[in-house]
Amino acid sequence: MLKTTIIGATGYTGAELALMVYKHPELTLAGLYVSANSADAGKPISSLHGKLAGLVDDKVQPLTDVAEVAKQSDVIFLATTHEVSHDLAAELLQHDCQVFDLSGAFRVKKQGFYPEFYGFEHQYEQLLDGAAYGLAEWAVDEIKQSQLIAVPGCYPTASQLAIKPLLDAGLIDTHQWPVINATSGATGAGRKATLNNSFCEVSLQAYGVFSHRHQPEIASHLGCDVIFTPHLGNFKRGIFATITMKLKAGVSDEQVAQVYQAAYQEKPAVRLVEGVPKLQNVQFTPFCDIGWKVQGEHIITCAAIDNLLKGASSQAMQCLNIHYGYPELTALI
Amino acid sequence: MLKTTIIGATGYTGAELALMVYKHPELTLAGLYVSANSADAGKPISSLHGKLAGLVDDKVQPLTDVAEVAKQSDVIFLATTHEVSHDLAAELLQHDCQVFDLSGAFRVKKQGFYPEFYGFEHQYEQLLDGAAYGLAEWAVDEIKQSQLIAVPGCYPTASQLAIKPLLDAGLIDTHQWPVINATSGATGAGRKATLNNSFCEVSLQAYGVFSHRHQPEIASHLGCDVIFTPHLGNFKRGIFATITMKLKAGVSDEQVAQVYQAAYQEKPAVRLVEGVPKLQNVQFTPFCDIGWKVQGEHIITCAAIDNLLKGASSQAMQCLNIHYGYPELTALI
Amino acid sequence: MLKTTIIGATGYTGAELALMVYKHPELTLAGLYVSANSADAGKPISSLHGKLAGLVDDKVQPLTDVAEVAKQSDVIFLATTHEVSHDLAAELLQHDCQVFDLSGAFRVKKQGFYPEFYGFEHQYEQLLDGAAYGLAEWAVDEIKQSQLIAVPGCYPTASQLAIKPLLDAGLIDTHQWPVINATSGATGAGRKATLNNSFCEVSLQAYGVFSHRHQPEIASHLGCDVIFTPHLGNFKRGIFATITMKLKAGVSDEQVAQVYQAAYQEKPAVRLVEGVPKLQNVQFTPFCDIGWKVQGEHIITCAAIDNLLKGASSQAMQCLNIHYGYPELTALI
Amino acid sequence: MLKTTIIGATGYTGAELALMVYKHPELTLAGLYVSANSADAGKPISSLHGKLAGLVDDKVQPLTDVAEVAKQSDVIFLATTHEVSHDLAAELLQHDCQVFDLSGAFRVKKQGFYPEFYGFEHQYEQLLDGAAYGLAEWAVDEIKQSQLIAVPGCYPTASQLAIKPLLDAGLIDTHQWPVINATSGATGAGRKATLNNSFCEVSLQAYGVFSHRHQPEIASHLGCDVIFTPHLGNFKRGIFATITMKLKAGVSDEQVAQVYQAAYQEKPAVRLVEGVPKLQNVQFTPFCDIGWKVQGEHIITCAAIDNLLKGASSQAMQCLNIHYGYPELTALI
Repeated sequence: MLKTTIIGATGYTGAELALMVYKHPELTLAGLYVSANSADAGKPISSLHGKLAGLVDDKVQPLTDVAEVAKQSDVIFLATTHEVSHDLAAELLQHDCQVFDLSGAFRVKKQGFYPEFYGFEHQYEQLLDGAAYGLAEWAVDEIKQSQLIAVPGCYPTASQLAIKPLLDAGLIDTHQWPVINATSGATGAGRKATLNNSFCEVSLQAYGVFSHRHQPEIASHLGCDVIFTPHLGNFKRGIFATITMKLKAGVSDEQVAQVYQAAYQEKPAVRLVEGVPKLQNVQFTPFCDIGWKVQGEHIITCAAIDNLLKGASSQAMQCLNIHYGYPELTALI
Repeated sequence: MLKTTIIGATGYTGAELALMVYKHPELTLAGLYVSANSADAGKPISSLHGKLAGLVDDKVQPLTDVAEVAKQSDVIFLATTHEVSHDLAAELLQHDCQVFDLSGAFRVKKQGFYPEFYGFEHQYEQLLDGAAYGLAEWAVDEIKQSQLIAVPGCYPTASQLAIKPLLDAGLIDTHQWPVINATSGATGAGRKATLNNSFCEVSLQAYGVFSHRHQPEIASHLGCDVIFTPHLGNFKRGIFATITMKLKAGVSDEQVAQVYQAAYQEKPAVRLVEGVPKLQNVQFTPFCDIGWKVQGEHIITCAAIDNLLKGASSQAMQCLNIHYGYPELTALI
Repeated sequence: MLKTTIIGATGYTGAELALMVYKHPELTLAGLYVSANSADAGKPISSLHGKLAGLVDDKVQPLTDVAEVAKQSDVIFLATTHEVSHDLAAELLQHDCQVFDLSGAFRVKKQGFYPEFYGFEHQYEQLLDGAAYGLAEWAVDEIKQSQLIAVPGCYPTASQLAIKPLLDAGLIDTHQWPVINATSGATGAGRKATLNNSFCEVSLQAYGVFSHRHQPEIASHLGCDVIFTPHLGNFKRGIFATITMKLKAGVSDEQVAQVYQAAYQEKPAVRLVEGVPKLQNVQFTPFCDIGWKVQGEHIITCAAIDNLLKGASSQAMQCLNIHYGYPELTALI
Repeated sequence: MLKTTIIGATGYTGAELALMVYKHPELTLAGLYVSANSADAGKPISSLHGKLAGLVDDKVQPLTDVAEVAKQSDVIFLATTHEVSHDLAAELLQHDCQVFDLSGAFRVKKQGFYPEFYGFEHQYEQLLDGAAYGLAEWAVDEIKQSQLIAVPGCYPTASQLAIKPLLDAGLIDTHQWPVINATSGATGAGRKATLNNSFCEVSLQAYGVFSHRHQPEIASHLGCDVIFTPHLGNFKRGIFATITMKLKAGVSDEQVAQVYQAAYQEKPAVRLVEGVPKLQNVQFTPFCDIGWKVQGEHIITCAAIDNLLKGASSQAMQCLNIHYGYPELTALI
């Protein structure tokens, strides 16, 4: 049994992880931590996330002695802010922990990226270089080998799973940038009180137009410019992405289908659907549903995921399963 | 044209009032005010409530000189907190303003009520005595005559409109307290950021069980004990109240119908419906829809209102219309 | 491995059952059936319930030869209409199947009940007598022994779990009937197209006032009259019930707490919460969350469940787990 | 007072029109009609649309004698299906009625359009030629002069109001087709019972990919190919459209702003917003809110409307106001 610790356990992704550790036959929960000055320190996690009551009632502890926590853990999930993950990872790795980081701190290996989009200079270029980008279907070897997995977030997961097969197969005319329109549930903004995410104020709208940091993350990993427009939807969980691309001249519907099937036929967390995916089919599941349609030189591909699961926690656990050789969906159904 | 001022204009009820003043043929908007230290002071109200754009774009001003504001106003709506209304009313009345207060500061004339349920000693017992309780269908004369109208809020309006006709007609067996279960939309908690009213956290639940201050307000005005259980629902606007009462022995279905019809047939803002009212029929309207069913010695009456309108702003404007002799629904449709 | 068949597999409860069978280590799916003339016959269940894709893709077969189906099954779940369950059960039992019936066909052993509330004469009084009423926490012995389990539905489960401990302990003054107000998500009406359950028409409202057949079911099993008012809420899944009762004179808060704790401390699917339960804590879970508050001679108890799970499918599976001696929550987390 | 008749009064747009006629100082309601074989014939409209109770309680009459209805009407709104509008318009025009048609029957003057996209041969080419396309901000003269106004629907209104100013000003590089992603509330599908629009089944998803008939309507009126992907959202009312376009080389942010301002500064139903519009600001209003952002050679413009109002009924009334010279927003606020 792998002793498993979750740091940043009080957010929505932390709570999902706690439930998965509970369900996982090879993991045992070693500790739930939150930053030392959090008002939630000392409380049972089930008092913050009532759905865990009776399953995971452990108290959330203040993170004061990182080394001690590391020593008591085989595996650590970081469901922390970018800055905290950035600061913690090095020490955890020194203690031989296997680290799955759900933040953006180790996702992009590109000069100048962190100062521009995250507002801090990255201090651990070497770790960044060695980190696997945990897009689970596309980095199996890296995930198996690396001690630090940077799990991609919600928009990049849905977008890349939809675009990458076609792009890698050379079917996309990249002179016309793929246009990604995606709508996320309100949990995407995290568990916190702001006027913008109050129940009374949420209604469908775009945000972060031309300025969201997931755009350079997607573009960097795909190796292709994209236009990415996120939207906030009036639902709690899920992302629905609609992606419009121009195909290279002569690309056929059959080629597209073959490429998608080849990419995902052995991948249990991606389901290719006839027609259009539907958000409620993936909510509370670890799946990414993908459907597409070709007309003339254009293709529209839609992808749907649960933002907290395939867009965060279940993908992190999927990476763990890959890393340790367990069936990919262990603890996820 | 009556010069009309709204103090506390930045909340949801203030914004609704601003729109009504815009629509009202006999009113002209004299000013929108917010407390002097509010971060919203100086902003156009339409930047806070985008739906007002193009209609009411006036800036919200900091309330610094109450006397000056009073001098420039014929009518003042107080959409302020209980404490602020309590403090402002006296001065405004001295300047001969007609005041419609949407807070709880002047609603209950009962010894010890304010210290116990609002946490402050009432300093203006005389004003309290002279204030009309603006349950519009039941206090026409008082509303016509009084200079200070204490407009009842959402739960008390729905509850009393449903109960009062039967109770006043002596049809209710009050040994068994009427049981009021009511569910309010999230705007009932006001325009503010709290974790409890974040989009991700709102789902149907009871709150304030046996401890909500609308219980003594309802009981006091009805002259009858009641059990009142409020709920927070996953919608923005509206209240649906289901009230279970025991009838006195021998009361017939016909008597009940006659009493309701007599009470409301001349009242344009109350609609008696066959069967059960439906929340969406009253959302964005000034109406209270009431339906009921009798079985044996029990009656269940349901009432539905828009909490921001008949439960606050449109009832305040209805009181204004009554006070000045305009048709009751002026500016409300 | 128990060969498990689901008849009536295309509805919401059938789909939930299919997923549970998939997850259950001791069950294997023997067949999914629908009535022979259904337009869904022959389709993969995952084409009707996309969330099952990749997990349960079996075709739904037309039920033509009941005996043959029975022979191939150890366990049968009936997620069928009341009439169909009534007609099928006898034959299935003759073939030694263990039957879990989610319909109302075998729930109430009371003369005249079926003609009055279900519109048909019951033809199998003997089966009815022998059927266990599968309120899982309260009928362990019957569930273990009976070959036919009549699983209670959503409102009766939430209501009885909240009321029964106090009533059985003699704490309730039944001269004043308990008042049950409950709100159900739209899946409670089943998977079908009606104007009333169209997205555009659903908003909070009461229905079935004084006329819902769950009232006599609840009253009959509790042995106490109750007033039951169901409501349709604008959410997909879940029931929130608020129950107002009068305590016998002198009953203390401590007695109430002791009774609830004694009733449920060994019951993993019931969670007693401090304060008030919250719908989203039980959605997509097999739990019933119960909280209460006492004031003077009154108590208000709130109970929340997922209507499709603890109010239907997970309770059926919980009964199976009890019947065969598996841990109660097997396949349910 | 203009005698005003609504044919097809029982749908959502018909009900909105009835309310507007009630509010309009220059109109009087002459009759509400539905097809002769409708089950709703003979019922008060307020029994179908409870929000109209107390305001418009007229019975909906079966349409049996078109000539008689035409004789008694100055103005007729057709809130009927495409086929019915197509068949009725000629006769109504012969009786000198002014006709506002909310269907698609007279919107597109393009050879072969109706057989391909609507499934019928158009029999009234001459009427089609003379019909004004009632995109209110862009066809003032035609609306003033024509006796038949074909009011555009929801997606085309939002899309064209956002695109047309830039396109007409020559700022768009049309080699790259504008990409329109739009999400509509469920009322867009009309008032009817289908499984797809049941409350339980609606969640965000694309539909009609590359096959929705609003695509050729938009393309035809703009004179520019577009890619249009509609989505069904989990809300009742509104459309939010996000449109990605490529600007011609050298087009500046200032030019864009000037073009939008020039187009709409005198148009009371279009509001240019800083940043991004928000759906709830336009729900239950006659406004189209438009915001945009330029980056490099791309522009993203977002437009939000209420699909039943600016996307249907209020635009029809706006056309009436323009035609007769009333202030444009009469009866709409």
